Amino acid sequence: MTRTILAALLAASAAPASAQPLPPQVQELQQAALQDDYAWDVLEGLTTEVGPRLAGTEAEARARDWAVRKLRAMGFSNARIETFALPVWVRGEEKAWITAPFPQPLAITALGNSGATPPQGLEGELVGFDTIDELIAAPDEAVRGKIVFVDHAMPKTQDGSSYGQFGRARSEGPSVASRKGAAAIVIRSIGTDYHRNPHTGVQTFAPGVAPIPAGALSIPDAEQVQRILKRGRAVRLRLLMTPRQTGTGQSGNVIAEVPGRDPNAAPVLVGCHLDSWDLGTGAIDDGAGCAIVAAASKRIMDAGRPLHPIRIVWFGAEEVGLLGAKDYKARHGTEPHHALAESDFGADRVWKVDSKLGDAREAEAKALQHALRPLGIVPGATNLAGGPDVSEMIAAGHPGISLRQDGTDYFDLHHTPDDTLDKVDPAALRQNVAAWTTMLAILTGGVEPKRTGRR
Amino acid sequence: MTRTILAALLAASAAPASAQPLPPQVQELQQAALQDDYAWDVLEGLTTEVGPRLAGTEAEARARDWAVRKLRAMGFSNARIETFALPVWVRGEEKAWITAPFPQPLAITALGNSGATPPQGLEGELVGFDTIDELIAAPDEAVRGKIVFVDHAMPKTQDGSSYGQFGRARSEGPSVASRKGAAAIVIRSIGTDYHRNPHTGVQTFAPGVAPIPAGALSIPDAEQVQRILKRGRAVRLRLLMTPRQTGTGQSGNVIAEVPGRDPNAAPVLVGCHLDSWDLGTGAIDDGAGCAIVAAASKRIMDAGRPLHPIRIVWFGAEEVGLLGAKDYKARHGTEPHHALAESDFGADRVWKVDSKLGDAREAEAKALQHALRPLGIVPGATNLAGGPDVSEMIAAGHPGISLRQDGTDYFDLHHTPDDTLDKVDPAALRQNVAAWTTMLAILTGGVEPKRTGRR
Repeated sequence: MTRTILAALLAASAAPASAQPLPPQVQELQQAALQDDYAWDVLEGLTTEVGPRLAGTEAEARARDWAVRKLRAMGFSNARIETFALPVWVRGEEKAWITAPFPQPLAITALGNSGATPPQGLEGELVGFDTIDELIAAPDEAVRGKIVFVDHAMPKTQDGSSYGQFGRARSEGPSVASRKGAAAIVIRSIGTDYHRNPHTGVQTFAPGVAPIPAGALSIPDAEQVQRILKRGRAVRLRLLMTPRQTGTGQSGNVIAEVPGRDPNAAPVLVGCHLDSWDLGTGAIDDGAGCAIVAAASKRIMDAGRPLHPIRIVWFGAEEVGLLGAKDYKARHGTEPHHALAESDFGADRVWKVDSKLGDAREAEAKALQHALRPLGIVPGATNLAGGPDVSEMIAAGHPGISLRQDGTDYFDLHHTPDDTLDKVDPAALRQNVAAWTTMLAILTGGVEPKRTGRR
Repeated sequence: MTRTILAALLAASAAPASAQPLPPQVQELQQAALQDDYAWDVLEGLTTEVGPRLAGTEAEARARDWAVRKLRAMGFSNARIETFALPVWVRGEEKAWITAPFPQPLAITALGNSGATPPQGLEGELVGFDTIDELIAAPDEAVRGKIVFVDHAMPKTQDGSSYGQFGRARSEGPSVASRKGAAAIVIRSIGTDYHRNPHTGVQTFAPGVAPIPAGALSIPDAEQVQRILKRGRAVRLRLLMTPRQTGTGQSGNVIAEVPGRDPNAAPVLVGCHLDSWDLGTGAIDDGAGCAIVAAASKRIMDAGRPLHPIRIVWFGAEEVGLLGAKDYKARHGTEPHHALAESDFGADRVWKVDSKLGDAREAEAKALQHALRPLGIVPGATNLAGGPDVSEMIAAGHPGISLRQDGTDYFDLHHTPDDTLDKVDPAALRQNVAAWTTMLAILTGGVEPKRTGRR
């Protein structure tokens, strides 16, 4: 019967998209998912009962324990943790003040792997650059011994692609500044909001480069500094940041399964990351993703038995360098996967589906595009897919699906204290669950209902 | 000539409002004010070059010096400071953590006059109340030795009247909790936003009541605490707050004038407050007010010479108990004032005009209502007016005007780190300047142009 559903979908995809109804099972699953409460339950639970869960800390360990308990309680099979070791960096005090010419405090946060100031802080002349490229082009003597400020303003984009471009101030700035002999660097937060909540995020000093204090100012503060610099007088900044590297810790991926009917069928992997930055409670980054993939998997499981198993992976230590993804690939990279997909771009609606299933599965890709249409999701590419923790697997040849979320407002909250439960719209979360449920209904090869005879 | 303008306005007000054009001078001033840049210049300067300016601190003193320089540079007469003494409270460290059952940090700020925890903090059981009245009704033994949480949620209102009602959690909560033997109190911020920026604000322990640590959680944090409490397990909170009373300091009112043609005419007082809370840069509370009244006064001054003088008062120490208002009333309360008005409700548009000029001046009140119509301002009461620093003078019998701003979003920002320049809409600021300029054009009895013969 379920093979018939897939066949119907594949056939339907050849006809004009709008003309063909969805197979009843897919339509039922999709409609029911629009009333989903599982995702909210997971998200509310994780953000409330664990809260922030920085990679490698005891908070992330508590999150893994919570996750195993939750996934088991939801009925998933074989919930387990695959642990791995990692170097751990933790935040300390973080404060900044303009001391001249207009004394006032600033809202700052340390970037990942930031060096520390002395316990009493450090003070220096502030030298400003509008872009990371201006800093790169500056002679060393313009920077040496000073505190560098980079005011690289990021515009909003629906697909979030501005993050890659403007994120360079964070990823490259600290190493560039250190190489030129700067005492410290503060950047305009890589974000798009106007609240006094700075955006943290990882950066890694290049090999051989001495760590220096590296922080991000909130966007209102960055604009304040820019206004002060424009007055043309010498500006001095005092910085107190005391993060530290605490040595080797432990992280892990939490994995659970919905068994498939065919014991030899490759799993469909649905992923997210369980760790979060420490400033917020990781609701949109990425509690929502974990909630969405678990809720969709549960809806399939509750409906019956899929042909392909579903493998849920809540990756660990994504924020600090995709370490869970690397561990997963090292352990499972050579196993066949029917497809991999990750939800890690907030909790706004899915607006586009991309896939990379290979030429032989184009009909399946088209069927997926067709089935997502009723949710307001447009067809995208069929030759690309990705997601932070699954991109390397996909690049290595595994098939992939990307349900692209609207990221217009994502960088208002990303990596800030404001990444909290109240920012998630339950209706948008449900639309995500419906999209993922639809995807799984198709990619798992159809669900065999628990009881026959309903139709 | 200007007497003719006033007479024309007074006559016009008897006819149907929409039928009568404004006198050309009023219309010209109003239209020109809609292009105003003076207010932005004052606001940008004050928030950038001074920043936060807590009452009684050296920052407020720098603000007074800045204000005198600025008002002189704008061309106002007799810019001066009337100083007064006050007790000064300053913020210290402020941190909070849930320690059980779900350890995580919370965003908190101390309320004005909060007591301090020991330097290492204090920890205790958290007992929650949905409203201030629930706390008041609770038996002492339910509270004694514990940390009280009051989750009194404030709704938005256009006129801001919810602040008075729901602000009781802040104004009464700490004294009530202390009387019942609580170790500390944390309240849901008196605000309407969903950012991790707690709202501070003054509270004063009742006579004989021992100060205890008293803080406000951001609204997302308050809802997080509420969710945790609802799990029904014992909740423990650790609190570190180290504010202190630093003794007697100095504040002052900054006063300047636009001379009137009639040396015996009573002044029209236009006020705001110069001090701000220390968390933001006091852009909407109340830099905008100072910018608006100065810009409107300058527009009148530039146009010519009003009959009544304008007295600009940038009050000091408003936030900590209307101390500038009290000092002004003590010094000037018996002097005649033609009218008093204050701008202290943010930077959104004026939507209504209230006044209390007395029965003998009803025609003037009607003329004012008529002249404000083109700015989208509706007529309100003619028997009431107020404003934090002018209410006592008005209550004592002086005439008053209130240009009511839309306060729907005011309590999103009020008393938070987010009260910064970027939150001010230049177009709305200009509408305010136009309203105040219009008001002054009428209340000062008309402006005699510098050069005759233009019409």
